[in-house]
Amino acid sequence: MRITTVGLDADDTLWHNETIFRLTQDRFRALMGEVAAPEELDARLAAVERRNLALYGYGVKGFTLSMIETAMELTGNEAPARLVADILAAGREMLAHPVEPLAGVDVALSRLAERYRLVLITKGDLLHQEQKLAASGLGDYFAAVEIVSEKDASTYARVFARHGTGAAEAAMCGNSMKSDILPALAAGAFAAHVPYPLIWAHEAADAPAGHARFAELASIADLPDWLGRLG
Amino acid sequence: MRITTVGLDADDTLWHNETIFRLTQDRFRALMGEVAAPEELDARLAAVERRNLALYGYGVKGFTLSMIETAMELTGNEAPARLVADILAAGREMLAHPVEPLAGVDVALSRLAERYRLVLITKGDLLHQEQKLAASGLGDYFAAVEIVSEKDASTYARVFARHGTGAAEAAMCGNSMKSDILPALAAGAFAAHVPYPLIWAHEAADAPAGHARFAELASIADLPDWLGRLG
Repeated sequence: MRITTVGLDADDTLWHNETIFRLTQDRFRALMGEVAAPEELDARLAAVERRNLALYGYGVKGFTLSMIETAMELTGNEAPARLVADILAAGREMLAHPVEPLAGVDVALSRLAERYRLVLITKGDLLHQEQKLAASGLGDYFAAVEIVSEKDASTYARVFARHGTGAAEAAMCGNSMKSDILPALAAGAFAAHVPYPLIWAHEAADAPAGHARFAELASIADLPDWLGRLG
Repeated sequence: MRITTVGLDADDTLWHNETIFRLTQDRFRALMGEVAAPEELDARLAAVERRNLALYGYGVKGFTLSMIETAMELTGNEAPARLVADILAAGREMLAHPVEPLAGVDVALSRLAERYRLVLITKGDLLHQEQKLAASGLGDYFAAVEIVSEKDASTYARVFARHGTGAAEAAMCGNSMKSDILPALAAGAFAAHVPYPLIWAHEAADAPAGHARFAELASIADLPDWLGRLG
């Protein structure tokens, strides 16, 4: 058995993302301070996001629309002046936010790229993810980029067949058990979970118990050695 | 010379799209009737869309955000009750709108798929374009689907290299001179323009004068014969 191809998640695996969402959500709480208590606001926003997910998919534009919809619901459509404009501005600032690679990513990708075909596999807004990759300066490490609307087992099977030698000779690395690890294992690939301190509520899931193709790593810096030990 | 691969645009080439945007814009005019004259509203919306294009890219979610932003600007952020909720609802209805293939598309694709590798090449929201293709029932004709953030010459060179035998042996068909025809020709491909009765202001461009690899066709039904005559 040999690994030829390594898939890498982007948001919260290569660079900070959930932090930016949380900061925006803090700002949303402040904007809505007169209208709703923080816990009520968070619960309502999460419900609106869940309801819209099938229609909007993942990414900042859908999140911005869901914040506006939440504000309208909680104000009975009578939003105070500037509120909607301020939410729009917060969304635009998320899209224009500088990309900050996580510690150790550049060195790890450099080591991995010497030995494996690297494929970026990410959800989110197409244009925004392309822009973040360009801004990160990490683009040259990747042989291919796949921005997908959903990450399930068939997604990984298709991507590793297209850009590698199939899922059985591939490994996936990411911060989301639900999106990066469990479906990649189900497709027959190896998978390494590198947790990020924050996780979006919709992405939480339990670790697979005692799976032979799975590892929990403290940092992406540990990925090259783990892959090396696989053969 | 032989053609091995045919790229097809989606919106307003395979199915109605601009019509749905225009109907939504009519609805936006009605919603904003107390606030702005139709011409002023259209001009302001076009300016906001242009300003946001680099950040939002193409698609319904960005269009919805731009309608809301336009409404906020024109009301001095004091939007009447329900206005923002109505714009959000209009956006969601666009995303859930049934897909109506254009006349002749199914038969034309069926003929083309017998002889060429068909590749769908489209801009817009990733999830929404995938959903429209699934809803259209046309997905099985395509060997590959490329949803891209921009259509320039390098896009066509890359897509026809990845999914075919290069741009020199490929033809592109679409309704937009600016996005489908001129960059495909620049990449070295053949290109057939099939106009749609409506065109988004940002997509208008002049036809190439007397280009050997270009044809203007009245309908996609004429595409198989044109390609057949090429060899």
